[in-house]
Amino acid sequence: MAQKEISSAVIERLPRYYRYLDELLEEGVERISSAELSRRMQVTASQIRQDLNHFGGFGQQGYGYNVQSLYKEIGKILGLDRAQNMVIIGGGRLGQALANYVRFEKRGFRVIGIFDRNPDLVGNRVRQCEIQYVGQLEQFLRTHEVEIAALTIPRDEAEEVARLLVNNGIHALWNFAHVDLDLLLPENIVIENVHLSESLMKLSCKLNKDRWLSEE
Amino acid sequence: MAQKEISSAVIERLPRYYRYLDELLEEGVERISSAELSRRMQVTASQIRQDLNHFGGFGQQGYGYNVQSLYKEIGKILGLDRAQNMVIIGGGRLGQALANYVRFEKRGFRVIGIFDRNPDLVGNRVRQCEIQYVGQLEQFLRTHEVEIAALTIPRDEAEEVARLLVNNGIHALWNFAHVDLDLLLPENIVIENVHLSESLMKLSCKLNKDRWLSEE
Repeated sequence: MAQKEISSAVIERLPRYYRYLDELLEEGVERISSAELSRRMQVTASQIRQDLNHFGGFGQQGYGYNVQSLYKEIGKILGLDRAQNMVIIGGGRLGQALANYVRFEKRGFRVIGIFDRNPDLVGNRVRQCEIQYVGQLEQFLRTHEVEIAALTIPRDEAEEVARLLVNNGIHALWNFAHVDLDLLLPENIVIENVHLSESLMKLSCKLNKDRWLSEE
Repeated sequence: MAQKEISSAVIERLPRYYRYLDELLEEGVERISSAELSRRMQVTASQIRQDLNHFGGFGQQGYGYNVQSLYKEIGKILGLDRAQNMVIIGGGRLGQALANYVRFEKRGFRVIGIFDRNPDLVGNRVRQCEIQYVGQLEQFLRTHEVEIAALTIPRDEAEEVARLLVNNGIHALWNFAHVDLDLLLPENIVIENVHLSESLMKLSCKLNKDRWLSEE
């Protein structure tokens, strides 16, 4: 049973634990010590024990973690123990890439609608899903249970679409637009940003570090 | 002039400052106080002063920051003051989305090659760039100056391709594959990860928080 005080720092790390546990299961590993997990993940064993301690009673002295139970328990915390419906707003290449990503489905995320305002894209299919005109989004949300919306549209359009989504019951936005929606929407809306330009800039910053340091 | 001790925490925040400064320039704002920037960005003014202090002498008491100089100076630190060539390994929808992203070009990142092993994709064009067979990658790297490689290929193929890239002079990897390449490659290689599944899981975790908290 999860304890109440799981911090956002731990939440940040949980998906990585989940990925390693998944790999261990694929390898047929049934149990693992914090020392061995530490070696694989290059995280200190004490950090691991501290993080996984939140899930109570799994790490036993001299036995280690039961991989299957820990995987299942973390999966629950991540909300992966049930199907969650998702819509994608923006049917361009990025939206299509997300809709096409089989791995999401394995985790319970089902893309049930893709919307775009570009008539050239409307009617195209990505796997089972046909791209619909964005004018139909509101009606769609009224007649389907949707939990998550991914926004792969330009910055200028994001705020208006986000408000429409929120006004129609969406609580979780996976935001690829370069705008801080969390500053524009009610506090109870959960948002996860993927800012691709910013990620590329960080890479470039690290790459160019030597150059500007030597300018001193 | 940048000081040597810019921490990785500050680097994490620089692209966001850069984005806000860009917006201010578009609005024609010439100078801004830390208080006003604080209001816009929802970061404390003292945090802003501390972060931007690294760039020495820009924030003057009673004057505020000169938007244009600060934008230019942060751009330099981010390596955006010159053109940087990039190749994309993986010509599927995600790779195509990156190649198609005009905003990168505005920042100096030029996609000069896209590679895939799938013969159905080879020969397709994304903007000026034709998708080439991945077997030609090594020869390409020998005859072109490339700084950054984006990896939009499955996990299983990522390590081998990353080694080939590194052995042919690439120092910066923008990694979309779900594998921790930093644990597999030499320490001097800079890596920025975009793990889409993990990002979606974090969103789901926050969305499902109420559910597992109420189970207590």
